[in-house]
Amino acid sequence: MKGIIEDLNWRYATKLFDPKKKVSQSDLNELLEALRLSASSHGIQPWKFVVVTDKKLRVELRKSARGQPQVTDASHLIVLCVRTNVDEKHIKKYIQDMAKTRNVTVNSLKDYEGSMTGSIKRKDKEEILEWSIRQVYISLGMLLTACATKRIDACPMEGFDHTAFDRLLGLEKEKLTSVVLCPVGYRGNDKYAKAKKVRFPQSEIIIKR
Amino acid sequence: MKGIIEDLNWRYATKLFDPKKKVSQSDLNELLEALRLSASSHGIQPWKFVVVTDKKLRVELRKSARGQPQVTDASHLIVLCVRTNVDEKHIKKYIQDMAKTRNVTVNSLKDYEGSMTGSIKRKDKEEILEWSIRQVYISLGMLLTACATKRIDACPMEGFDHTAFDRLLGLEKEKLTSVVLCPVGYRGNDKYAKAKKVRFPQSEIIIKR
Repeated sequence: MKGIIEDLNWRYATKLFDPKKKVSQSDLNELLEALRLSASSHGIQPWKFVVVTDKKLRVELRKSARGQPQVTDASHLIVLCVRTNVDEKHIKKYIQDMAKTRNVTVNSLKDYEGSMTGSIKRKDKEEILEWSIRQVYISLGMLLTACATKRIDACPMEGFDHTAFDRLLGLEKEKLTSVVLCPVGYRGNDKYAKAKKVRFPQSEIIIKR
Repeated sequence: MKGIIEDLNWRYATKLFDPKKKVSQSDLNELLEALRLSASSHGIQPWKFVVVTDKKLRVELRKSARGQPQVTDASHLIVLCVRTNVDEKHIKKYIQDMAKTRNVTVNSLKDYEGSMTGSIKRKDKEEILEWSIRQVYISLGMLLTACATKRIDACPMEGFDHTAFDRLLGLEKEKLTSVVLCPVGYRGNDKYAKAKKVRFPQSEIIIKR
């Protein structure tokens, strides 16, 4: 047991953070960079990430997250959000970004743009949103793993009032909606830190063909 | 740039695998272990993972995945699947597993079981499936990151005929359906390997509050 497997065995959904221990600016930046570099279908990046440090705001947010202490006590609260406007305009912006980054013409990317636009057009608005949310969950997986490799604790949380969070964070005007929370920081005296990880054995979940 | 950020910059969705280079059994086992250890809501693990090595079967599967060469040419094809039966029975099994692992009584976990059962009961069958699929995407994010740390290439793929895959892999009788593919192996002479990664800058996707 070493490397990534040791990292993943180390991590757990931290219930109690030490409110005194802060993630350094450079470590936080690495976590945000891991989110930025995350994979998504076509590389379409249907997301933005809100980092909440304001104490008063976090007290308010906690009230809309079943009072769970991680919201206020972790070093930083990251709110993973999905763009509600993943459309032809978003794709065009992405293609322009790609052309600039790779020093090619927008025209040379027409086929790629067409395949993405086609994929969007086959879905209704609700399906696009759900597909986009799935991509956000990839970024959550990458963030949790990045945290583990750096021995930074995290706690993915779905149990919160999305409408209240969107309002308190002013997300609607940014064309975003909140998907999942990920407070990050360092574990406190958390009884769950020592609890054995519960996972079905490989024999039950791996099928060979 | 070092550690996890270097790893994530190294990775890309590999279009062309070297069919001669195989992932060793011990490396494969680490990737499967990363999937097994993946985070999920409540730790509910609504997934199984199919590892396909049979060559003939992979030729058949490729036909139902737009003919994309990764399906046959990567060292191993991993099919990430969602359980279609995430219900009270599944939760009961998970709770029994937890009781055994942590050496506590099933009765002491009644509240935890109740909160999970409650969460399931508030959703209809379609919502449970979609929620479960989101969890599978966390495991995809963790797998891709694990691959990157080990310099193993991967290519997440959504573009395939799910019904055909389910039939060819015999998933229905296992109460599973295919969600996303992840061939793993080593990049061949792939022109995309050297292409610059295209990502929006942090200034466009990180919001501070």
